Amino acid sequence: MIIDGLQYCNWSEKVFREMRQGGVAAVHATICYHESLRETIAEVERWNRRFERFPDLIMQGRTAADVRRAAAAGRTAIIYGFQNCSPIEEDVGLVEIWHQLGVRFMQLSYNIQSLLATGCYEPEDRGVTRMGREVITEMNRVGMAVDMSHSGERSTLDAIALSARPIAITHANPHCWHPVPRNKSDTVLRALAQSGGMLGFSLYAHHLQGGPACTLQEFCAMVARTAELMGVDHIGIGSDLTQDQPDSVVEWMRSGRWTREPASAAFPPAPEWFRDNTGFAGLAAGLRGAGFAAEDVAKILGGNWLRFFEMSFAPA
Amino acid sequence: MIIDGLQYCNWSEKVFREMRQGGVAAVHATICYHESLRETIAEVERWNRRFERFPDLIMQGRTAADVRRAAAAGRTAIIYGFQNCSPIEEDVGLVEIWHQLGVRFMQLSYNIQSLLATGCYEPEDRGVTRMGREVITEMNRVGMAVDMSHSGERSTLDAIALSARPIAITHANPHCWHPVPRNKSDTVLRALAQSGGMLGFSLYAHHLQGGPACTLQEFCAMVARTAELMGVDHIGIGSDLTQDQPDSVVEWMRSGRWTREPASAAFPPAPEWFRDNTGFAGLAAGLRGAGFAAEDVAKILGGNWLRFFEMSFAPA
Repeated sequence: MIIDGLQYCNWSEKVFREMRQGGVAAVHATICYHESLRETIAEVERWNRRFERFPDLIMQGRTAADVRRAAAAGRTAIIYGFQNCSPIEEDVGLVEIWHQLGVRFMQLSYNIQSLLATGCYEPEDRGVTRMGREVITEMNRVGMAVDMSHSGERSTLDAIALSARPIAITHANPHCWHPVPRNKSDTVLRALAQSGGMLGFSLYAHHLQGGPACTLQEFCAMVARTAELMGVDHIGIGSDLTQDQPDSVVEWMRSGRWTREPASAAFPPAPEWFRDNTGFAGLAAGLRGAGFAAEDVAKILGGNWLRFFEMSFAPA
Repeated sequence: MIIDGLQYCNWSEKVFREMRQGGVAAVHATICYHESLRETIAEVERWNRRFERFPDLIMQGRTAADVRRAAAAGRTAIIYGFQNCSPIEEDVGLVEIWHQLGVRFMQLSYNIQSLLATGCYEPEDRGVTRMGREVITEMNRVGMAVDMSHSGERSTLDAIALSARPIAITHANPHCWHPVPRNKSDTVLRALAQSGGMLGFSLYAHHLQGGPACTLQEFCAMVARTAELMGVDHIGIGSDLTQDQPDSVVEWMRSGRWTREPASAAFPPAPEWFRDNTGFAGLAAGLRGAGFAAEDVAKILGGNWLRFFEMSFAPA
């Protein structure tokens, strides 16, 4: 069973058909970067229309059981997640409201300081805030997984320690392999694994050694080394696939409304061996080539995420 | 099984304990009069806290099966409803969002003109609007019951005709018995019954002949006459109980933010034989006294609402 720990594609029938071709049982789909409560509800409305329009391809996923049902029915379960905490405003009670609407992952911060934690591009990381502690407790209670992919080192270590349930870094790679602020130190990765958490390896070019030129073999060798550090039960894929998105989306992701400076950025090309959801077959072959047993490849490509979903999404 | 088709009490442990004492399996509880989307979400948050705090007394009800489960577990199922369409703003997609959060009834208008229909105190009733038609179609699709308790005559007849599923007038009495704008004409009541819909008899003093002095016998005789008009399968109770509410709440109900004129009104006293949820036993006795068979009393006090819930709350 293949599960992708994060995507933010320009969703379309084409993308959904490729999910089916790739045998993808579930995708954690971002529904918010900087959007307000109301704007994020509008995104849920757009997903409702997609579920109505493509019932043979996709369905909403709220539980691990939904993912199994989707796999059995030949559909892909879409699991909502936020990359930022803007949709909960200053109101811890909104965590449960969003859980009721199906949100199962929330990043405590996205690149910069949030009300809850510090982002990985903020010059100083003051750790998880007082409200952040309350929100983690509430996420633990209702069954929403903490995701620290875009948070700073201290905030991430805080979140691992504070959360009563294992947390996730849904899309990032080891800092020692490719030292950019978005990738994670061995200290973080070890603490994450020891607490029962999950790392999803990113295929976004900026997170890859060599960028888009990174080869499948190099990527899979990095996965093998990380498996030695974290254990093969704590790693998965979080492709960060942003297929078919226009470059205006990068500007929104980077600048939101928190700065007047536009980020004049463009999406980097994806590595040629993972350009869409049909790339998982090659990834499986690459992992076998890097020395993983078939059983471990199955864990990395989906089994570990499914176990994490089992532990994470039901009310405490 | 006792089901109340509408209440808006000042919710408290006391009220919930009285629901249990009264053997009430389900209550349709108003969560909005004029509140915005965001304000209504805050009311859902307050209910979430109540469900967390009083798990032995109440639970959220989303389906007829939930009501049966609540009855079996000795709890009362709380079913959300709006008395107005303000929480869907100008966005038909919000109907499904609210259904996902558990809302199962929505009035198309509350006393005045709304985007969807005309209220019963508006001088001219232009019927269900273009957006109203779209919203009825969407409510039919997702499984949210149309409630026309506070709407005008033409809008109500329109809604009965336009809705593919039976609709409800959750809390009102026959106009011929007590001619106030909130009570319903025989024309409406006949059309409602012929379409398979439900009338919930109101115990709010302003809807009663003689006001708070109306006797149990007079009320039950009116129920018996209405059963002859509508059939015993299309009537229930919608007590409109507003127990323990301060008078400021009447002002909000009447004036919202649509007028600067305050409604200097007070809640009328409830009839002494129905002041809280323990009043259903007396009501049962009164209905027997008015000539109803035990089987019909059971229908009126809950069985008919349960059947209506079965028909109304699941997606089409």
